[in-house]
Amino acid sequence: MDKAQQKISILGAGLVGSLLSISLAKKGYDVTIFERRPDMRKAGAIGGRSINLALSNRGLKALENVGLKDKIQESCIPMPGRMIHDLKGNLDFQPYGKEGEFINSVSRGGLNWLLMNEAEAVGVQIMFDHRCIDVDFDTATAVFDNGKSIEADFLFGGDGAFSALRNAMQKTDRFNFSQEYISAGYKELTMPPAPDGDFAIDPNALHIWPRGEYMLIALPNLDKSFTCTLFFPFEGETSFASIKTEADVEAFFNDKFKDAVPLIPNLKTEYFENPTSSLITVRCSPWVKGKTALIGDAAHAIVPFYGQGMNSGFEDCYVFDQLLEKYGEISDALLNEYQELRIPDGNAIADLALYNFIEMRDKVADEKFVLQKKIEKKLNELYPDKWIPLYSMVTFSDLRYSEAIARGKKQQEVMNEVLSRPDIEKHWDSMNFKAIIDQV
Amino acid sequence: MDKAQQKISILGAGLVGSLLSISLAKKGYDVTIFERRPDMRKAGAIGGRSINLALSNRGLKALENVGLKDKIQESCIPMPGRMIHDLKGNLDFQPYGKEGEFINSVSRGGLNWLLMNEAEAVGVQIMFDHRCIDVDFDTATAVFDNGKSIEADFLFGGDGAFSALRNAMQKTDRFNFSQEYISAGYKELTMPPAPDGDFAIDPNALHIWPRGEYMLIALPNLDKSFTCTLFFPFEGETSFASIKTEADVEAFFNDKFKDAVPLIPNLKTEYFENPTSSLITVRCSPWVKGKTALIGDAAHAIVPFYGQGMNSGFEDCYVFDQLLEKYGEISDALLNEYQELRIPDGNAIADLALYNFIEMRDKVADEKFVLQKKIEKKLNELYPDKWIPLYSMVTFSDLRYSEAIARGKKQQEVMNEVLSRPDIEKHWDSMNFKAIIDQV
Repeated sequence: MDKAQQKISILGAGLVGSLLSISLAKKGYDVTIFERRPDMRKAGAIGGRSINLALSNRGLKALENVGLKDKIQESCIPMPGRMIHDLKGNLDFQPYGKEGEFINSVSRGGLNWLLMNEAEAVGVQIMFDHRCIDVDFDTATAVFDNGKSIEADFLFGGDGAFSALRNAMQKTDRFNFSQEYISAGYKELTMPPAPDGDFAIDPNALHIWPRGEYMLIALPNLDKSFTCTLFFPFEGETSFASIKTEADVEAFFNDKFKDAVPLIPNLKTEYFENPTSSLITVRCSPWVKGKTALIGDAAHAIVPFYGQGMNSGFEDCYVFDQLLEKYGEISDALLNEYQELRIPDGNAIADLALYNFIEMRDKVADEKFVLQKKIEKKLNELYPDKWIPLYSMVTFSDLRYSEAIARGKKQQEVMNEVLSRPDIEKHWDSMNFKAIIDQV
Repeated sequence: MDKAQQKISILGAGLVGSLLSISLAKKGYDVTIFERRPDMRKAGAIGGRSINLALSNRGLKALENVGLKDKIQESCIPMPGRMIHDLKGNLDFQPYGKEGEFINSVSRGGLNWLLMNEAEAVGVQIMFDHRCIDVDFDTATAVFDNGKSIEADFLFGGDGAFSALRNAMQKTDRFNFSQEYISAGYKELTMPPAPDGDFAIDPNALHIWPRGEYMLIALPNLDKSFTCTLFFPFEGETSFASIKTEADVEAFFNDKFKDAVPLIPNLKTEYFENPTSSLITVRCSPWVKGKTALIGDAAHAIVPFYGQGMNSGFEDCYVFDQLLEKYGEISDALLNEYQELRIPDGNAIADLALYNFIEMRDKVADEKFVLQKKIEKKLNELYPDKWIPLYSMVTFSDLRYSEAIARGKKQQEVMNEVLSRPDIEKHWDSMNFKAIIDQV
């Protein structure tokens, strides 16, 4: 069939739905996106669950594939490392990777806006205020709450963590599904530009105030503000539940994030006015049913601690695009390969993201962790193909997440032994690195 | 508040909903059950997903608590052990427990019928053809597809693996939920009485034809028939998908279940006419929200391989009843204790049931397994309080499932070491049993 006659419906005009629409339209398909919300571009405000995101290699590769990488990198702020703030306000910069490697702070709303514009520019139609309430898998038909039923040749659910397509799939036999919330939630706070108009803290870093069971982070915005996010337990002795008054907020922040307090002038107001949001992990299988498929958060919503939510969703789009190159059309073989590749990778990045909360809130402040980073940096310099730190495999490579997690586990076992050696902190630089590499 | 004025709604007139209604009515509550199906007693047929079930200690204890144990045991067929059928038709009887210990084959429909009658006899109202489509947690209001909305003081979801109450909970924030299907399904087949009118095979056993990746089992019915169940992979070389013709069925059964074939006269017809059903495990948390709570399969649907689906649901009712004795009313403290006790136990029996598929289809035919059973029997005779085989803890005791699984794990570690000893099969009877007991 002529692709120009093949109609594709996509649920969701978020980041993944929009990018997918561009890549399919560029391949010649007739693509319509159905978005349950109104057009955020008309409202003038930016929607979405968080203000900024970390864009890295996998996401950039997918954007490059549709010719948008350079355009988007113009609106990014490079973050080559973490800036750790200790209790006293002392700073410690930990590079994420090698010289020249960085992740990018990007506005979720700005990026989404640009992708919707680009989608329309390549012929994609976006229908707003269309909330899907049911799907017929065999006819790729979406039923909307406004009474419309729209059939297509294929339908994608790019409609996020609470996907309507996935909801419909969940009612069918033998659909495996889980949704798990972590015990912490998050609250966003604003660090405006300094009185001189510049960034209040170093913009070329992802700032972390690691405090064991919880943490504050900050990512820079183009307007020279930072968006701070407090990740904090819902319940317990020190938690959203235990902080009840403005005095509680003040005392807690002064005690734990002293250097940040003067930089967040509306702390007390924002703390009580801004929502407390929860953090979900969604896994499911299969991702394909009849003439429909899940993609992005709809298939694998993850917690944000590896900065890979958007990147993994964009990688789904890239992988689908490559499979279209290989198979020429959306066939059963293509769909099988898509889910056989991406389900294990979705599960792997879900696991990595959960694990990284512990690393970010706790381990980055640990001397052994810092030592491990040093040793791994050296191993990578000496044997760049054989030893790639896990963070780099996930963030700066396009190795499958499932392979990254497997290699990372093996490397961690070796590192655990190395780190347990007596006086390792004194002698690590003169170790037999070859003997270490031979173990992985 | 006077309990007689307290209105309780229960979704589901299945086994658990009916038993729960009896126990609450006996405590003085004004109980109404809402069941989505018509009254199976009027249809004259027995409904439900499987024909017969294994009732054991936990279920009987809950029935005894409402004065129904003796009445129900009259309709039970005792099964003191497994009868293993090998490929050649040789039989091997493996007792489940000690002399006098047995599980009971009972008709699901017959038991449900009796429980509904008893419920009505103690004042419970059962409203049939009421399918719940939504729930308001704060007002214990159920909304039905016939347009009615019924409020109560408290609402239970005893409405099974696809619970409407749980569905409503799943849409709320921070509700953890998973549904996982195993790769095997099942199909029921009938073994009628022999030509002389008696059971075709020994009625006082649960018959198993263990064949590695799959198995056939048979449980006796009061009418002297057996209900056979084939547990079989959906896909693969030898699977529901690979058996396509009557000739395939005949060849497969003659090859693998030769001694059963002459006893299942309608094998070929039934194989294609009877449904192939899937096997789900559901876990969730919390079980309580506002003035509502989940109970039975609605809270913890499990696979049938430990014969504990009904028993664990009945135990939920027993535990709730005991908590009502303790607290005097349905309070927040009671509800918290209910879910804190039962969620880990629900997860434990879910794990045990999944594991037991491997044991039933595979290990029961293994010499080491048989030897382990012998050694454990001896250990239990010598140290009846210190060593109870896992099967017995689950089936013949009321130890919490979570404790049973923990003790079972410890015991299995010890047994693995014992079974690895050279020539253990020759010398096991003269081992130092005291030294083994000292390890657990």
